[in-house]
Amino acid sequence: MASHFADRLCKAVGSKKTALTVGLDPVYGRLPLAIRGKKGLDNGKNAAQAIDATFDFSLKVLRIVAPHVPAVKINIAYFEQYLWEGIESYYSLVNEAQSLDIEVIGDVKRGDIGHTAQSYALAHLQNPELEGFEDVLAPDAITINGFAGSDGIIPFAEVADKQGKGVFVWVRASNPSAAVIQDFADAAGVKMYEKLAEVVAEIANQKTRIGTSGYSNIGMVIGGTSGSQTTALREKYKNVWFLVPGFGSQGATAADCVRFCKPDGTGALINASRTIIYAYENEKYIAQFGDNWEKCIEQAVIDAKVELAKAMQ
Amino acid sequence: MASHFADRLCKAVGSKKTALTVGLDPVYGRLPLAIRGKKGLDNGKNAAQAIDATFDFSLKVLRIVAPHVPAVKINIAYFEQYLWEGIESYYSLVNEAQSLDIEVIGDVKRGDIGHTAQSYALAHLQNPELEGFEDVLAPDAITINGFAGSDGIIPFAEVADKQGKGVFVWVRASNPSAAVIQDFADAAGVKMYEKLAEVVAEIANQKTRIGTSGYSNIGMVIGGTSGSQTTALREKYKNVWFLVPGFGSQGATAADCVRFCKPDGTGALINASRTIIYAYENEKYIAQFGDNWEKCIEQAVIDAKVELAKAMQ
Repeated sequence: MASHFADRLCKAVGSKKTALTVGLDPVYGRLPLAIRGKKGLDNGKNAAQAIDATFDFSLKVLRIVAPHVPAVKINIAYFEQYLWEGIESYYSLVNEAQSLDIEVIGDVKRGDIGHTAQSYALAHLQNPELEGFEDVLAPDAITINGFAGSDGIIPFAEVADKQGKGVFVWVRASNPSAAVIQDFADAAGVKMYEKLAEVVAEIANQKTRIGTSGYSNIGMVIGGTSGSQTTALREKYKNVWFLVPGFGSQGATAADCVRFCKPDGTGALINASRTIIYAYENEKYIAQFGDNWEKCIEQAVIDAKVELAKAMQ
Repeated sequence: MASHFADRLCKAVGSKKTALTVGLDPVYGRLPLAIRGKKGLDNGKNAAQAIDATFDFSLKVLRIVAPHVPAVKINIAYFEQYLWEGIESYYSLVNEAQSLDIEVIGDVKRGDIGHTAQSYALAHLQNPELEGFEDVLAPDAITINGFAGSDGIIPFAEVADKQGKGVFVWVRASNPSAAVIQDFADAAGVKMYEKLAEVVAEIANQKTRIGTSGYSNIGMVIGGTSGSQTTALREKYKNVWFLVPGFGSQGATAADCVRFCKPDGTGALINASRTIIYAYENEKYIAQFGDNWEKCIEQAVIDAKVELAKAMQ
């Protein structure tokens, strides 16, 4: 039987001693010149070259960060923009990541109802059983959009259950305009995202979904920049893992993010994307490592870990 | 300059004299035996065979329905479950549909913020400009998920504007559990989906987005089974096209759906999926056409058109 996703997360966070995860949102135009300057990869207007360069960069980043973090988050949109060839590259990357002893989260934000939701779950969570795809591994967990309520969440949860995998439902986003919809409040002051969190928690709290660590395989995405009132979710939903995007470039500080971690360090994954993967654009790291872009990224991961550890004290 | 999506829709609805659209949600196990019984297509556990059979069926359905309806809606999830090879098949199908003089809507329900949303828009709305994908056409419009508010809608709208294309934001779903989230109401009784509709309408109402028909290229998805109170959206947002799923299998009647059409027949696309594409499973059509599955589908389209026309009287 497959192990439990939440248990694997606890173990990974314990062994890497951090809640930090690295997000891969690779954009061709920002790749290091050492990669996109290479012959055969230097034409960003050619799909095959752009995909190869993006894959080459992403794989190198994975190998740099894997020894330091419990999990990586791969954003499919940056691959999907290269249509089916980009999607093939995404799955290749997920497979490479699976061999690096880290948890792999596919940031896919799929969302629909019934049979359609189930089809998305088969695409993104289930290790394919079809002839022709036997060697493909899907991510350990994915992000989904829970706008349709439980009918749109349960089909994903059920595939995750069978596969020892996880689901993070997008509950409160980190962008400014999210508040108009997600902080929409009823007469009692309950906000829409709190209602959605309730729906997710009811699914997450099913006994069969709780691992030996006490955590469920169904979690929530809560933006680090969301208001301080979201901290209440930590207290309220003790057996839920939070995936917290927005650390760094999106403006969330270490303190904004670690409020979702329990004192033992479990319970939240804190994701930084651009501040890490583009660290070689940062004057501070350029001064230290010149054009050694890989060193810049490694140091940025180490610095981010230290920053989170300090904020946890 | 590309023509305006809403103007094309008005013209298409006028010439086909119906608001009916056909949704393609093809599931291998339900394909006609005449297709999945064929040698080389008869093993649903083989990805290539399942994809080829699904494509073969879908293309035949497109050719049957195209003379009768203004638009088709292709649900990417049923292709995406076959990973990148399914996605390639989806784009091939979109391209075939584009040659049939109908509007093609990609039911992709993508949703994210900022640069990620833009990447999804490039994947699903923009006719690719990359070497290697010159011959690919994206759909005329897509469905998106507006949970993140305007930050998650505008990046799609901007790509649509430049390409003469359209966007339908999922505002009120047709599934039972949607009400918990989408009918969540504030102290004044305003529901969350009404707030979301306001956000969409503000984007849709930008003057540059209104075509000569008076309609915007930014529309809304409103489930036909949603409560009668959603009818107010028709009155309130006069220049918005509604995409109305749920006619037939999901339980919405013709009357439930035509309430979103204006008296001249424009303003709403009413989508039926399973009742049409699986009409050959319906005793009524089997009695009439035996195992001629194509005739069953054609008759089901004609019957659905008549049903909607009667409901409009």
